[in-house]
Amino acid sequence: MQVKTSSIKLKVPDGSEAVLVKNLYLSCDPYMRGRMNRPISASYIGSFQPGSPISGYGVSKVLDSGHPNFKKGDLVWGLTGWEEYSLITATESLFKIHNTDVPLSYYTGILGMPGMTAYAGFYEICSPKKGEYVFVSAASGAVGQLVGQFAKLLGCYVVGSAGSKDKVDLLKNKFGFDEAFNYKEESDLDAALKRYFPEGIDIYFENVGGKMLDAVLLNLRVHGRIAVCGLISQYNLERPEGVHNLSALLLKQARMEGFLAPSFYHKYSNYLELVLPYIKEGKVTYVEDIAEGLESSPAALVGLFTGRNVGKQVVVVARE
Amino acid sequence: MQVKTSSIKLKVPDGSEAVLVKNLYLSCDPYMRGRMNRPISASYIGSFQPGSPISGYGVSKVLDSGHPNFKKGDLVWGLTGWEEYSLITATESLFKIHNTDVPLSYYTGILGMPGMTAYAGFYEICSPKKGEYVFVSAASGAVGQLVGQFAKLLGCYVVGSAGSKDKVDLLKNKFGFDEAFNYKEESDLDAALKRYFPEGIDIYFENVGGKMLDAVLLNLRVHGRIAVCGLISQYNLERPEGVHNLSALLLKQARMEGFLAPSFYHKYSNYLELVLPYIKEGKVTYVEDIAEGLESSPAALVGLFTGRNVGKQVVVVARE
Repeated sequence: MQVKTSSIKLKVPDGSEAVLVKNLYLSCDPYMRGRMNRPISASYIGSFQPGSPISGYGVSKVLDSGHPNFKKGDLVWGLTGWEEYSLITATESLFKIHNTDVPLSYYTGILGMPGMTAYAGFYEICSPKKGEYVFVSAASGAVGQLVGQFAKLLGCYVVGSAGSKDKVDLLKNKFGFDEAFNYKEESDLDAALKRYFPEGIDIYFENVGGKMLDAVLLNLRVHGRIAVCGLISQYNLERPEGVHNLSALLLKQARMEGFLAPSFYHKYSNYLELVLPYIKEGKVTYVEDIAEGLESSPAALVGLFTGRNVGKQVVVVARE
Repeated sequence: MQVKTSSIKLKVPDGSEAVLVKNLYLSCDPYMRGRMNRPISASYIGSFQPGSPISGYGVSKVLDSGHPNFKKGDLVWGLTGWEEYSLITATESLFKIHNTDVPLSYYTGILGMPGMTAYAGFYEICSPKKGEYVFVSAASGAVGQLVGQFAKLLGCYVVGSAGSKDKVDLLKNKFGFDEAFNYKEESDLDAALKRYFPEGIDIYFENVGGKMLDAVLLNLRVHGRIAVCGLISQYNLERPEGVHNLSALLLKQARMEGFLAPSFYHKYSNYLELVLPYIKEGKVTYVEDIAEGLESSPAALVGLFTGRNVGKQVVVVARE
């Protein structure tokens, strides 16, 4: 990645249905790693094009519009470019922002794709019930912190794992997890999980994959559910680690299911109805890790894969 | 395993609610391998007790009964002992046999636990739809042969894998699979699956695990489903093989789910209503591999794990 300077006319070409936006906040998300690979036929989103700006989720302000649904001054979130100004032709991926009495950057996180990921993954994929035992990995991240809070609000017992003392403190003291641990300090993940889940795990919200998944499989309860949201520990490996304990799915009659937030975007308004009151009443909090300036975005993105970020990684391009 | 001779009184003890049965047909099933391990806390069925008869599914005739639901002359299927006569105290595991115009041995297979496994796994876990692409491994086995036929009856495209030319012939010529292949002759399982499923796999009925599972994951379609019925290739390994391609669950928004037939036994009468007409009308056929005599049962059981059996492995202890 490199920063390039060029110029763009701040106007939609005549006859085009595109919108021209000023980008305010850009979102660094783990799924973007997959877009650095060669395209695979069935990928749900295209690979990055060498020589073109990175594309990703962001919050933007409409400066000019050829599309009847958008007008100058509108705030939107959706897929945009990693640049100061973008001409967006795929306007079907844009959501208009109506609620502005929350931080605008939240539309890269709790009110955007990661929020929908937590909502769909937890409520739709996991079918959670009050009192169940819930484990979340990468629990202080953009999605994990929400899953843990949603689970607590439902009356579940919730434990999170993360990769530093600061993150573990956040989980326990800010997000209200019942317990949390630093996976880097556990030489035996199976033993760690047995310590926190002597009765076993009903729901695992999977963000990391690899050894943690193998350890969770050993600790599943009957009819356990694993929502496969991400496998961040595996994305930079030449070959993903082998998972050895899948026989647990059989013995425990358990389910493991992958999902992608965009398949649930038709429920976005339901989600806002749920989560906006939670935010305003202080029942859910959201921690962001803010990088300043477009030039900070490559390092911010790469930092996800070593866990450098604390909370949702956002890049501020402009504040308004 | 060894054959021991001892004597038993062919009468239920006074005051007992047990039943005393003569065992006719014994069932050799892959799940029994797990019962040779030390008990694990959450196992769904106990380990075998060294020094005691093997227990397993069988078809038996009641000789004496202390239980109001059973009387002398009744035919039953359920958990019994690998012996000529058994005193069964866990009578809740016994089903009375009402339909005797089919081979009695079928109650160890198509009309017993393996039948319920195919029924529950295919219809309940896979939620199949007409026209979908279905792959079945260990496809000529007690369960696989039924899944393939059920899928064909529903209008699916069905391919099966098995471990010999004879079995592949059975799949194509007797069970009506669209295609079948000998996995032992395929050096690249991924390539084999791409040959038979150029459009990918909607449903995988998993009986084997390991490398085949890894190859299927690479060929899943969006919203694919994997019913984990068994992992027979893994049961005799010191440590199960690693499965590397689980990220497919995420990219394809796919589901992988383990299940056990006994959780669906409350639907047994529904299953009989479906399958008995199929049998009588010749729409479903069932192939058994019959071993004669109780003394043949150890080798018959062990043979499952090298694929020696062709079709459902049954041991005949007595024919009436």
